[in-house]
Amino acid sequence: MKLTVKLLDIANRGVLLHSTDAQNIRVRDGDRVQIADETAGISVQAHVDTTSSLIEPGVIGVYRPLNATLAASEGTPVEVRSAERPLSLSYIKKKMDGGRFTKDETLEIVKDIVDDTLSPGEITAYVTASYINGLDMDEVEYLTRAMVETGERLQFTRHPVVDKHSIGGVPGNKITLLIVPIIAASGLRIPKTSSRAITGAGGTADLMEVLAPVSFPAAEVQKMTEKVGGAIVWGGATNIAPADDKIITYEYPFRIDARGQMIASVMAKKFAVGADIVVIDIPVGRNTKIATPQEGRKLAREFIELGERLGMRVECALSYGESLVGHTIGPNLEVHEALAVLEGAPEPNSLIQKSLSIAGIALEMAGKAAYGQGFDMAADLLRSGKALEKMRQIIEVQGGDPTVKAEDIVPGEYRFDVRAPQDGYVIELNNSALVTLARLAGSPYDHGAGLDIHAKKGTRVRKGDPIFTIYADREWRLERAIEVGRVLMPVVVEGMVLERIPPERWV
Amino acid sequence: MKLTVKLLDIANRGVLLHSTDAQNIRVRDGDRVQIADETAGISVQAHVDTTSSLIEPGVIGVYRPLNATLAASEGTPVEVRSAERPLSLSYIKKKMDGGRFTKDETLEIVKDIVDDTLSPGEITAYVTASYINGLDMDEVEYLTRAMVETGERLQFTRHPVVDKHSIGGVPGNKITLLIVPIIAASGLRIPKTSSRAITGAGGTADLMEVLAPVSFPAAEVQKMTEKVGGAIVWGGATNIAPADDKIITYEYPFRIDARGQMIASVMAKKFAVGADIVVIDIPVGRNTKIATPQEGRKLAREFIELGERLGMRVECALSYGESLVGHTIGPNLEVHEALAVLEGAPEPNSLIQKSLSIAGIALEMAGKAAYGQGFDMAADLLRSGKALEKMRQIIEVQGGDPTVKAEDIVPGEYRFDVRAPQDGYVIELNNSALVTLARLAGSPYDHGAGLDIHAKKGTRVRKGDPIFTIYADREWRLERAIEVGRVLMPVVVEGMVLERIPPERWV
Repeated sequence: MKLTVKLLDIANRGVLLHSTDAQNIRVRDGDRVQIADETAGISVQAHVDTTSSLIEPGVIGVYRPLNATLAASEGTPVEVRSAERPLSLSYIKKKMDGGRFTKDETLEIVKDIVDDTLSPGEITAYVTASYINGLDMDEVEYLTRAMVETGERLQFTRHPVVDKHSIGGVPGNKITLLIVPIIAASGLRIPKTSSRAITGAGGTADLMEVLAPVSFPAAEVQKMTEKVGGAIVWGGATNIAPADDKIITYEYPFRIDARGQMIASVMAKKFAVGADIVVIDIPVGRNTKIATPQEGRKLAREFIELGERLGMRVECALSYGESLVGHTIGPNLEVHEALAVLEGAPEPNSLIQKSLSIAGIALEMAGKAAYGQGFDMAADLLRSGKALEKMRQIIEVQGGDPTVKAEDIVPGEYRFDVRAPQDGYVIELNNSALVTLARLAGSPYDHGAGLDIHAKKGTRVRKGDPIFTIYADREWRLERAIEVGRVLMPVVVEGMVLERIPPERWV
Repeated sequence: MKLTVKLLDIANRGVLLHSTDAQNIRVRDGDRVQIADETAGISVQAHVDTTSSLIEPGVIGVYRPLNATLAASEGTPVEVRSAERPLSLSYIKKKMDGGRFTKDETLEIVKDIVDDTLSPGEITAYVTASYINGLDMDEVEYLTRAMVETGERLQFTRHPVVDKHSIGGVPGNKITLLIVPIIAASGLRIPKTSSRAITGAGGTADLMEVLAPVSFPAAEVQKMTEKVGGAIVWGGATNIAPADDKIITYEYPFRIDARGQMIASVMAKKFAVGADIVVIDIPVGRNTKIATPQEGRKLAREFIELGERLGMRVECALSYGESLVGHTIGPNLEVHEALAVLEGAPEPNSLIQKSLSIAGIALEMAGKAAYGQGFDMAADLLRSGKALEKMRQIIEVQGGDPTVKAEDIVPGEYRFDVRAPQDGYVIELNNSALVTLARLAGSPYDHGAGLDIHAKKGTRVRKGDPIFTIYADREWRLERAIEVGRVLMPVVVEGMVLERIPPERWV
C-alpha cells in the first residue's frame, strides 16, 4: 500500500506503522516490510514497530539508520508491502542442520548482513550456527571474499603493501604505534586500519585519536598512505569489510570467538587494503585468546593457508601474552609511552622488543632486510629517529599536530597510587581486572584515564611501594575505580613461600 | 542516572534515550539498561534506541510493551544505568559449546525470555543452539517445568482432566471442534487452549472465534470448564506457558522445528492446565512434519516418557497426514463443516472418523469406555446430539450465541470455481499450495475466506467439473488468489496413464 514518509530520529534500523496499516498489509511487530520509493528507484527492507497514536494511518515512520539507505524526504510517497523471506534464512538453516555454505550462499548472507536485510536475531542465528557447526577452509575463504566484495577496497599501484594484525587479548598492546612508522620509514606502505575498544581499555584507533583524527573514507586512507607511506585509521569509518563489525556486534553478548569468522574477518581487511605481506601477532598464554603454543601454531597455519588462497604472503608471530605490553593502559598513557620510545626512550623493553620483532619480520618478508636482519634494521629505523620523523608525517597527514611530544600527552589529573600491603613479590597481576579498572576510570572515552603499572609480575616490592597508579579525568570515576579495585584485587603480593604445609599428624 | 519517563506508543520492548544520556551511562544502540522506579520498587531491563532530537536529555522514552511491566506514568523519575550481562547468556554459550543445561539454568533462561530480559537476537541464539546441539530428556523435562512455572496454572479439584493436541501440518484439521464437546458431553473436563494460525490458514483459536470470544485469563478458563466441562480458547491470552509463544516466534523465520522444544512446549501447556490424560495426534506423511511412521513412533515414545516424568498419562495416535481433514480450509468454511457434523451430517468421513478415534482414545484412558469401545461411545455422544448440546453450552459460556446453526456460518460473497481442465483423476492436491491460496484469499483474518475442496486426491473428474472453490470477503483478494493459483497449480488432473513410454528405437 502507498504510505507517506515521516522521518523519525530513532537510531534503530526499522520503520513505524500505524497498527491499522500493519494489519492491512498483514505484518506484525518485528515482521519485515519492503519499502519502495518508485520515483527514486530505491527499495529497502526493514523491520516493523507498530503504534496506534504516534503516527496517523497512511504514514510510515522511517527511522534514521534506514533512511541512510532509503534517502527519502518527509512526505515522499512509498509503496510498502510485506516482504518476502530472504533466501539467506534457508542457507542459515542449512548450516544449523550441519550443511556447508556455498560461495554464492555466503555472498548472499553477507550482502543481507551489510544492507540490514537480516535482523539482529537472524544475524545471531548465522553467527551461532557457524560457531557451533564450524566453517571449513573453503567456507572461510568464501566468507573472506564476500566480506571484501561487500565493502570498499584500496588499490595501490606500487607494491608491496604491508599490513599487520594482533589477535588481541593482551592489554597495553600499543605496538602498532611503533610498527607502522618503522615500516613506512623503510619505504614500504602500510595502510593500517584498526578497531576501537570493544572489551578492552583502548583499541589502536582510540590511541591514535589522541594524536590525530582517525575517521576517513577508504579513498582518503589510500591517498594518505601513498603520500607518507602509512596511516593509522579507524576501520569502522572506511566501509572496508563492513560485514565484520556487524558480525562482531552479535558475537559479543555471548563472548563467541568463532575461529573461522575471526580468521575471515582479519584477512578480509588485509585483502581489502591490498596487502601483499601480512604479519599476524598471536599472543599466547593463560587469559589470552590462545592458551597454548600448540593452539597458536594451528591458528597460524590457518592464517597462512587462507593467505595462500588469496595470494597474500602471511607470517605469524606467537608472542608472550600473559603480561601487558609496556607499563600503561589507557589512551594518553599508552600514547605517551609509545611516543617516548619513538623519541629515544630505552624502555619499556617488552614494548620495544615486540614492536621491533614484528616490524623486522615484515621487513624481511618484503626483502628490505636479509633473513635474520629485520630486527636490527627496525631497531636502526627507530634509533635513528627516522621512525619518529615518519610518525610525525603520519600525524600531520591525518590532520594532527606533527610537533607533538611525548611530554605533551599527560594522564588525567585525578590519581591514586595502589601500594604494596607488605614486603614480597608481585605474584599475580590480573590482566582482565586491570582492564576493568581502566574502563571504570573512564578509558578509552576519557583519554586521560588509565593505569600506569610500576611493578609487573615477579617484581620484588617493599611495603608501601606503589604497584600501580590509577588515573582519571573525573574524580567520581577515579573513586569508582578505587572502590571496585578493592574488591577485584588485581595485584597479589606474597612472600616467595606461598603456603606452609604443616607436617602430617601422627595418627 | 535519574531520568524522567515519557511514554511512547511504540510496540517494541525498548526505551529511547537521548544520545548524550546514552553516552553518559555508556550504552550504545541495542545495549541493555536497567530501569528502576525506586518509589514503586520495580526494576526492569530493556534495550536502548537513541535519538538526538525526539526527546530531550534527561528524558527516557518508554515504549508501550515495556511499560506493561514498568507501569510508570508520564513524568515518573527513574534510575537508569547500564545493565549487567544476564547470566543466561553464559548458559546459552555453554549449549553452543555442546554442554547441557541444568534445571536452574533452564529456569533462569526461561524467566529471562518471559520477562524480555533476553533480546530477540539472544532468544534466537538460545533456540539455535538448542536446535543444533539438541536437548536430552532431562533437559526437555527441565524446559517443560520451567515453562509451566513461569506462567499461570489451572488447578482443578475434580479429576481426571483431559487434553489433546495435534502436532499440525495438515490443513483443515478442525477436529478439536468435535472432540472437545464429545469429551465434555461424557462428563469429563477438557480445558482446551489452542493457537492461532502461524503458517496455516487458521488455528483452532481462529476457528472458535467465529462462534465466540476466545481470549480469557487462565482463571476464567478454569471457571468455564468447571461450569460446562470444556472450553476452546486462545492460549496466547491465558498466560499459560508464555515462554512458548516467544520461542516459536524466533523459530519461525528459520522454520526451525526443534524436537525437544516442541515436545516441551506441547507438554508444558497440558501440564499447566492440570491435565491427567493426554492424547497426541501425530499426522504422518509426506509434506507433514513427520514423514514416516517410524519417526512418528519415536516421537510418540518421547511424549509418553515426558508424560511419565510429569505424572501425566499420554497416548499418541499416528494419523494419515497426506490429505486435508474434511473438505474445507478457512474459518467460516471449517466451522460450518464441523457444526454440520455436530448437527448430524453424515460426512465428511475423514473428519468424523478422525475426531471419533481420538475422542475414543481419551474416553478409554479416562475409564469412561472399556478398551476398544471408545470410538463407539464417542459416536453415540455425537449421534445422540449430546455433543451438539455441549458445544452450544461451551459457545454460550464463552459469550457466543448458543442458537447458532451451521447454515448461519457462510463463506465469503466472492467465489471462484477451479474446474477440471480435462477428464481424468485428481492425482495431486498440494496441501501447502492450498493453504497459500486460502491465505491469499484472506484466511484466517477474513473469516469468510478459504477453500472448499470438492474432489480430493484419487477422485475421477470430468472436464469442467468444479475441483475446488475459492471464497473471499474482498474481491481484490479473490483476484490475487486466482492469479497466484494459476501459477501454483495446487491440483493436477491426469488420465490414469500418466506417461507413454515409446518403444525403444531399433538401433
